[in-house]
Amino acid sequence: MKPQLHSLLGIEQLTNAQIEAILALAKRMDPTRPTQLLRGKRVALLFYESSTRTRTSFEFAAKTLGATTTLVTPVSSSIEKGESLIDTGWTVASLGADAIVMRHANSGSVYLLARYVEVPIVNAGDGMHQHPSQALLDAYTIINHNKKLKGLRVVIVGDVYHSRVARSNAELLSRFGAEVVFSGPPDFVPAISATIAPGVTACPDLNIALQGADVVMALRVQRERLAGKDISLEDYVADYQITPQRMKLAKPDAILMHPGPVIRGIELTSEVADGPQSCIHEQVRNGVKTRMAILAMLLGAARQ
Amino acid sequence: MKPQLHSLLGIEQLTNAQIEAILALAKRMDPTRPTQLLRGKRVALLFYESSTRTRTSFEFAAKTLGATTTLVTPVSSSIEKGESLIDTGWTVASLGADAIVMRHANSGSVYLLARYVEVPIVNAGDGMHQHPSQALLDAYTIINHNKKLKGLRVVIVGDVYHSRVARSNAELLSRFGAEVVFSGPPDFVPAISATIAPGVTACPDLNIALQGADVVMALRVQRERLAGKDISLEDYVADYQITPQRMKLAKPDAILMHPGPVIRGIELTSEVADGPQSCIHEQVRNGVKTRMAILAMLLGAARQ
Amino acid sequence: MKPQLHSLLGIEQLTNAQIEAILALAKRMDPTRPTQLLRGKRVALLFYESSTRTRTSFEFAAKTLGATTTLVTPVSSSIEKGESLIDTGWTVASLGADAIVMRHANSGSVYLLARYVEVPIVNAGDGMHQHPSQALLDAYTIINHNKKLKGLRVVIVGDVYHSRVARSNAELLSRFGAEVVFSGPPDFVPAISATIAPGVTACPDLNIALQGADVVMALRVQRERLAGKDISLEDYVADYQITPQRMKLAKPDAILMHPGPVIRGIELTSEVADGPQSCIHEQVRNGVKTRMAILAMLLGAARQ
Repeated sequence: MKPQLHSLLGIEQLTNAQIEAILALAKRMDPTRPTQLLRGKRVALLFYESSTRTRTSFEFAAKTLGATTTLVTPVSSSIEKGESLIDTGWTVASLGADAIVMRHANSGSVYLLARYVEVPIVNAGDGMHQHPSQALLDAYTIINHNKKLKGLRVVIVGDVYHSRVARSNAELLSRFGAEVVFSGPPDFVPAISATIAPGVTACPDLNIALQGADVVMALRVQRERLAGKDISLEDYVADYQITPQRMKLAKPDAILMHPGPVIRGIELTSEVADGPQSCIHEQVRNGVKTRMAILAMLLGAARQ
Repeated sequence: MKPQLHSLLGIEQLTNAQIEAILALAKRMDPTRPTQLLRGKRVALLFYESSTRTRTSFEFAAKTLGATTTLVTPVSSSIEKGESLIDTGWTVASLGADAIVMRHANSGSVYLLARYVEVPIVNAGDGMHQHPSQALLDAYTIINHNKKLKGLRVVIVGDVYHSRVARSNAELLSRFGAEVVFSGPPDFVPAISATIAPGVTACPDLNIALQGADVVMALRVQRERLAGKDISLEDYVADYQITPQRMKLAKPDAILMHPGPVIRGIELTSEVADGPQSCIHEQVRNGVKTRMAILAMLLGAARQ
Repeated sequence: MKPQLHSLLGIEQLTNAQIEAILALAKRMDPTRPTQLLRGKRVALLFYESSTRTRTSFEFAAKTLGATTTLVTPVSSSIEKGESLIDTGWTVASLGADAIVMRHANSGSVYLLARYVEVPIVNAGDGMHQHPSQALLDAYTIINHNKKLKGLRVVIVGDVYHSRVARSNAELLSRFGAEVVFSGPPDFVPAISATIAPGVTACPDLNIALQGADVVMALRVQRERLAGKDISLEDYVADYQITPQRMKLAKPDAILMHPGPVIRGIELTSEVADGPQSCIHEQVRNGVKTRMAILAMLLGAARQ
């Protein structure tokens, strides 16, 4: 049977049925049991930006399904020599890649490539735009905690403005009826950010935002992004760090999520990161399952 | 049966029969069907220079044949620590590599290594000297277009002086009776370049060179190579860029080739790169087939 | 049966029986015959420091046993982004790594990680501290030359102070009754270095130290380590370079070892490196066998 999906670029291009199909398939994937489902398939990992978890997650996912992977990074490639993104993509496709998993610093770059290259493309993060596999694994993790997305209060805290994780999550979660609340200083959560999807609101006061939260999702704060902003690192930590006290404002069974890499002492304390409500390691584990599902679906190997 | 060939260093060391054997074997190779022909063989990719297409091409070729690959690059190796090339080669061989595919900025370096290391070596480009697998895949591509090498007019345009692609192609093609014409400004095509092989001529005027051409092969022009030369980038583009107009000077069924990476707007226009005469993607695809043949032959797995 | 060993951090944590078990298992390993002993196992190579031979050795070892490997280096990872070592380790473990082989510039770092991460960890070199797989492969090489460790005179020459190889070797060899003699200038062999293990002595005069030696082990001398020291490179070479003349001071059947990378003309001459007593390539070959044994044992696949 034909795959339902050709490429995975962003949440906005997925139907609800496709999202549900990926999550259902992820549930059946077992990263500890190697299979030959994608035997003979070649997955190219085209990473213009550095990444541990996403790159390795796709690599483990592909290899567990029996595919081979090839890493192409700017450091060791002719990308430096002035070749255009599209020509690099064509080259990788002509070399025989059956799918390209791509990360790039420019928003929209992955969509551009997908218009020119025929092989399935997976967006592993394009600038400040989309990171759909992260949103899918986050939804998987939430649902796996017996939480229904409909009516769920999800508070996303931090540098929403620069975050492709926030964007993809807000789009996916609000589609299934969750109430998404962005919280952070105005530079990071401009008023307009709430217009990204229906059901999204902005609440600068974190202590208010957290009340009744089912899910607290902290985002990474890059120190260099604070330069020239109205808020200092000290003030950010004082107002927006997730602490055990703040976690108590959420529902007792609320879960704490973070896409990683975690910088302890900035966006959250070690007590919270390592506490019983933390799902950080679970997210990483679910990432492999979710990406196995994505690759299986795009490469037509999933029984659908 | 013993392999006919121990290492692939340069075109000059191959007999015509060996070249024909590699091309015949390449024809039988199918990059979309993984085999176990080289199961258990380890191919080390020793890349002192960055490369997307050549490195990935050998990697795909090796993996499709069931071999494993290991990438060794200066960035992540003890090469930086002052170890000599020969000692690095010995180490890679002692670690158990069954073949070493090597790229190095110094002309002759691969030949040096081959004198000291017993495992088969494939030259994936040594400085300005040789790039034999490129010449083999180019010959494969030309022949695949129902073109006989004997009597064929092949115009190689651009920075011939620095080009290992030009050198290896000129040697291979002229051996089989093709007429090879180098065209470019004097700094890039010095008069002496025509002495590289019998049947090679230099023709500085591209518009004359192209007349009656069967194959137009554009070379990469590195901007930094133009520094301090008599010709400016603007003049280079005016006189030597392959345009649709210039392609009309060649035979109607002429093909356009480029070893990549392509820099659009310098050595050729997008119209030409993406036009019906362009074989650029085909070259990339044929590269995997040709390298599968090379590895199979060197590792003794080819039925000969 | 349960593996006898959970992680391999340093020689000091191994019992003599465990060392003997690893060496016995190494003897049975054949790097030229791929097996499926570790099929489906994922080995993460977490290399914070560059390395050719150790990284590639573990990679070949893992792949020969049928495991897959994934390289994680600072260059292409979120390590740069400020994630802590422990969080990186947790991430790699959560991604599904069955074992982590780690090299890091900080002494003790691998032990720190092992306290927090549950998957087996192999120390592939931590700063100036331990390099246990090197000591094990060195012991294997010595024994393989029909030399009994008991009573053996092993002279370790060079920058002992900074050398994890010296430290791990001295601990292992002295445990089995070898007499270990450190030789080098005072900056490199401080008097206190002899206290590292029973049976270790320091002898600044190499010509005396070498008398009656069964094994001469030269260490790498990093030029930058000589800066600000009392000894110049010229004096180092004069007093401590291993030359054919100096090798004659040792027993006639003495062997010459070096962990690599070798810098010819500094720590030894080419005549010695390539001479009949040199075991340098053998060490590299035995490294793959030894690391196959280590991985098989840690991953519970060894018949014990």
